[in-house]
Amino acid sequence: MYKTKVILSLILLFSLGKINLPAQQTSTEKDAFFIRDIYDEALLNGQAYNWLEYLCTSIGPRLSGSPNAAAAVEYVKQMLDTLGMDTVYLQPCLVPHWDRGEPEQVRIVNSEKIGTQVLNGLALGNSIGTGPKGITAEVIEVQSLDEVQELGEAEITGKIVFYNRPLDATQLNTFSAYGGAVDQRALGASQAAKFGAVAVLVRSMTTLNDDVPHTGTLVYEEGVPQIPAIAISNKDANLLGQIAKEENVRVYMRNTSQNLKPKLSYNVVGEIKGSTHPDEILLVGGHLDSWDVGQGAHDDGAGCVHAMDVVHLLKALDYRPKRTLRCVLFMNEENGQAGAMAYRDQSFAKNEYHMAAIESDRGGFTPRGFTCDAESSVFEEKFKKMSPWFELLGAYGLELKKGGSGADISRLKPQKGMLFGFVPDSQRYFDYHHTPVDTFDAVNQRELELGSAAMASLIYLLDKYGL
Amino acid sequence: MYKTKVILSLILLFSLGKINLPAQQTSTEKDAFFIRDIYDEALLNGQAYNWLEYLCTSIGPRLSGSPNAAAAVEYVKQMLDTLGMDTVYLQPCLVPHWDRGEPEQVRIVNSEKIGTQVLNGLALGNSIGTGPKGITAEVIEVQSLDEVQELGEAEITGKIVFYNRPLDATQLNTFSAYGGAVDQRALGASQAAKFGAVAVLVRSMTTLNDDVPHTGTLVYEEGVPQIPAIAISNKDANLLGQIAKEENVRVYMRNTSQNLKPKLSYNVVGEIKGSTHPDEILLVGGHLDSWDVGQGAHDDGAGCVHAMDVVHLLKALDYRPKRTLRCVLFMNEENGQAGAMAYRDQSFAKNEYHMAAIESDRGGFTPRGFTCDAESSVFEEKFKKMSPWFELLGAYGLELKKGGSGADISRLKPQKGMLFGFVPDSQRYFDYHHTPVDTFDAVNQRELELGSAAMASLIYLLDKYGL
Repeated sequence: MYKTKVILSLILLFSLGKINLPAQQTSTEKDAFFIRDIYDEALLNGQAYNWLEYLCTSIGPRLSGSPNAAAAVEYVKQMLDTLGMDTVYLQPCLVPHWDRGEPEQVRIVNSEKIGTQVLNGLALGNSIGTGPKGITAEVIEVQSLDEVQELGEAEITGKIVFYNRPLDATQLNTFSAYGGAVDQRALGASQAAKFGAVAVLVRSMTTLNDDVPHTGTLVYEEGVPQIPAIAISNKDANLLGQIAKEENVRVYMRNTSQNLKPKLSYNVVGEIKGSTHPDEILLVGGHLDSWDVGQGAHDDGAGCVHAMDVVHLLKALDYRPKRTLRCVLFMNEENGQAGAMAYRDQSFAKNEYHMAAIESDRGGFTPRGFTCDAESSVFEEKFKKMSPWFELLGAYGLELKKGGSGADISRLKPQKGMLFGFVPDSQRYFDYHHTPVDTFDAVNQRELELGSAAMASLIYLLDKYGL
Repeated sequence: MYKTKVILSLILLFSLGKINLPAQQTSTEKDAFFIRDIYDEALLNGQAYNWLEYLCTSIGPRLSGSPNAAAAVEYVKQMLDTLGMDTVYLQPCLVPHWDRGEPEQVRIVNSEKIGTQVLNGLALGNSIGTGPKGITAEVIEVQSLDEVQELGEAEITGKIVFYNRPLDATQLNTFSAYGGAVDQRALGASQAAKFGAVAVLVRSMTTLNDDVPHTGTLVYEEGVPQIPAIAISNKDANLLGQIAKEENVRVYMRNTSQNLKPKLSYNVVGEIKGSTHPDEILLVGGHLDSWDVGQGAHDDGAGCVHAMDVVHLLKALDYRPKRTLRCVLFMNEENGQAGAMAYRDQSFAKNEYHMAAIESDRGGFTPRGFTCDAESSVFEEKFKKMSPWFELLGAYGLELKKGGSGADISRLKPQKGMLFGFVPDSQRYFDYHHTPVDTFDAVNQRELELGSAAMASLIYLLDKYGL
């Protein structure tokens, strides 16, 4: 143990080439040097940042069914084609085609206190429109889905329900804060509709006190009337919440969003056949679609270029995987996961075994490690097998912890492989999530490159030792 | 140990108020709850971000001797005055007063390859000027101070020496990369002058391939002729390096920088007298001065507001320190450390004992822990005393590691206390360091607030248990 630490320290302290390699290396020493090679390659010659720039600034936002989403499919296919993989192909899937329509209008009307006041709003994904004339109704502020039920039809009918429970900013991990509030956005419209509401406004899903509305998907419950739903910025939510406490405030809201006919789209898949265990698949992936505002830089352009860069880094280091390495850029994670379902269906139909899968969908920030998930019957045994890697990865600030993996790969769990979620620092993610400000310039090059290296290092260990 | 882990998990999983406190708390449990209180207070009611906004956007850059530096002294004194400390006072120090003068001009002249090409330059702090007519001379590119010596007078005399060794981007910690290259900036001018150079150009001290020149201080060696020195952006350094390899390229450079008469300035000090051990001082600090470009947001506005927020957080939680808590905002860290020397001189004259000191001067990014430094005769014993805290701090991602503390507090080492450097994530720091882009909007509110909480938590443990 001590010796390993010394070796790791040496490798970290001195860059490659500055020390002579020991004549006889242990397996751990070889691993430590190879992982150092991966990091050097990522930090000096990584492709992630260049690819991300193109995805973000030359293509832009990539909502499922949009022309930009088609461009993104073509672009990443072309890039994978440059990497010398055995096959690169498109995997068809039928995706929802939601269209935001005209810019949303939301305003407080004739408030006793402040008169008319425009609010910054973005319709939630999947939301229907208000109709061309918009909707004007009294606002009732609530803190939860339960409160809607408690208030009941008497208080809710004919009103705009305004979900205004903030994220708990005291959570260290912002994903926990998000998880504790997002039911309002995902399920609030149907809950309100059950009690006669005409529309829904939702506070933005961020701890930030910003002027920017954060969109995201809603799910309409079957058999419940569909009503329109718009997210407003947190500054505006604070204002509206205050006014609503003081008077019976009315809001005008208008959006022309609609769900169009589903569109044919694709996952993009690249594969290197394993040299000795071709039936054991190692998947690295992200999702290619994004919301229709901003550039989908952290969500999830970063994840896509991470996955692609894993292939590039291993190729650049002449590493030939023993197991089959598959890079999958999923379509439609944001509003339907049609790509993930198509991938799963084909994988199960072919009786495949994903020994491991890593999804990057938490942004391109400084890496902290990976969450690990598997069927409970196999989890402990597999997790234990990874313990010799803890120190190798720990030298780069990476921890392996139990936790959920990723929306696209989690459907592979019945194959009984290990599923990993890439975990970067979470503090800034929800500053950008689902907004016009999730743009290329919000991504730091080194932080992004370290993510590619972290994922490639884990893939290397998985490939070499198996699970 | 296991029990502590369970308690910590509970506290992290559920916010305060959601679980009932055990009737009989152990000391560790009390500490865990108090640290959770500190974090809640910082994330919900921290003052650091507001103070930083004022320092950056209402005052701006704060070079020693400038009117803005005087404004900053007055501002932080006023803010400390609001915190109910026992005393707040100014501690005089005579600071160098360097003035950049007119905007620098740097250009490649009459290159065979590219003709005339303007380069982005910023004079180094303390640099003399070129004279009003500027200097035109042939450029000789070098990679190190040693190379200047090897080339000798025959090759150097009459030329502009261009230091162009890049930072080693493969270092995981960017401060290591910086430390491995900064000798060129700090000592390059005198080294070149010894062999007859007329001026110096220096590549910027960042791993980034950016268009922005990064300034910083140079030190003229006594008895060596002083020659002007200008940093150029790394994109321009790459260009100039390439041209210099292909032809005898000449550069025109002009700056009108000068060292004016020293100015009276101040450290700002606030103190809460310890209730039971007033002679054991706990210092929290940052430096108030910055370079004259940008807004000194990460360097070191963040450190100042961290230190001030430690006082605010402990006050807000009604914590009365047993030891004397001193918040010190040092003047002139960047180009002379006159504030640090004045503080040290007075402290030694009064025979004070700093049991511990924490300096924050590595930016306002997500906290990773603290480096610890003390005289070797006391280090191990004191470090060992802190081991019961590792888990309490580790729950917030904080590690205590051996390493240098901070430029201002390191002079207190002979008092045999423990000196700490606050360590945030290092990846982005040198994107902003000493540039026009080190501005308020480069600082993330949550990341900054977590820094205040980290420092306050360590101060709490130091105060409660002593070292």
